[in-house]
Amino acid sequence: MSESLFDYPREPLLIVISGPSGVGKDSVIQRMKERRMSFHFVVTATTRAARPGEVHGQDYFFISNDEFAEMIEKNELLEYAIVYNDYKGIPKQQVRDALASGHDVIMRLDVQGAAQIRNITDAAVLIFITVTSEDELVARLRERKTETPEGMNLRIATARRELRRRVEFDYCVINRDMALEETVDTIIAIIQAEHSRVKPRKVSL
Amino acid sequence: MSESLFDYPREPLLIVISGPSGVGKDSVIQRMKERRMSFHFVVTATTRAARPGEVHGQDYFFISNDEFAEMIEKNELLEYAIVYNDYKGIPKQQVRDALASGHDVIMRLDVQGAAQIRNITDAAVLIFITVTSEDELVARLRERKTETPEGMNLRIATARRELRRRVEFDYCVINRDMALEETVDTIIAIIQAEHSRVKPRKVSL
Repeated sequence: MSESLFDYPREPLLIVISGPSGVGKDSVIQRMKERRMSFHFVVTATTRAARPGEVHGQDYFFISNDEFAEMIEKNELLEYAIVYNDYKGIPKQQVRDALASGHDVIMRLDVQGAAQIRNITDAAVLIFITVTSEDELVARLRERKTETPEGMNLRIATARRELRRRVEFDYCVINRDMALEETVDTIIAIIQAEHSRVKPRKVSL
Repeated sequence: MSESLFDYPREPLLIVISGPSGVGKDSVIQRMKERRMSFHFVVTATTRAARPGEVHGQDYFFISNDEFAEMIEKNELLEYAIVYNDYKGIPKQQVRDALASGHDVIMRLDVQGAAQIRNITDAAVLIFITVTSEDELVARLRERKTETPEGMNLRIATARRELRRRVEFDYCVINRDMALEETVDTIIAIIQAEHSRVKPRKVSL
């Protein structure tokens, strides 16, 4: 009897939760955390100042511009971007460590960031969160009221353009209004199915 | 606004549940039926006589040798095989009709039959049911006691050889002892994930 036949290694997965602004990525991640499954949720490094209540190492790693520059230079970031004059990026070592300990890694990224991950590795599972209609997305963005009219128009135009990029992803999940549990259930199902693939995706970073 | 962006067609799936003799395919299918989801479970045509309690059109389509021969000749079977001197096969039109009505089609096939389906279409979702060890499979087969010692040895040898064919499948699900619900949950998750693929598999028969 060959042992290897029954040696089904459970390869940890690198899962990217993405989608345009306004589709509800943060709520999805929050709900996934609340379910207390054994995922590692990536903590992003950022140069912006902590807001009241934000905890270093939990919400973000708050680091200086110099520290961030050093991480870029040493190629220690999986991906990074400038967001409203501040730098944000994912520390490579954190992801490597989590995968090495056998945990599935979940990262929330904007559409640009997800595309960067796809360029680095085909083994990532890219999940695009979307809404039932473009009108609904616009309505959700307008509800936020945290922006100037010009800022809002730019955000809407960007979200509209990004909706068309779902074809670059592996899976597309519609986050229906008032149906967050259903959205999270579908994401969990995708992760479960990916673990049942005969040919597992093997991530190397 | 382009309508097609939000036109996420739900392509019905062709799902094959397979695996060696003794892994519990019948129990899996039975439990899936009990959950009363909107799947179409394929009814196989066979030339063998109905056993007490079996219902024509529900358990099998019981047809004559002549009728079966005609179906082969007219290419009306998706796949067929001779099992213990009787013919068994899947009527193509039944599968086409179920898919056309938007239902996912579930068929239970032995490993040979699953390979035949793969040859016909890449769009089928092939799920291999297996056990935790080869010893467990042998133990399960011996429990059946419905065979002569020679018949049993042949069945065990076949099952051992078939365990190695999981690499030909898309997914592999371990049907652990006393964990049938978990097995069925995983199969349902696979089906849900397949429906969330950005590039759906389109079955044409």
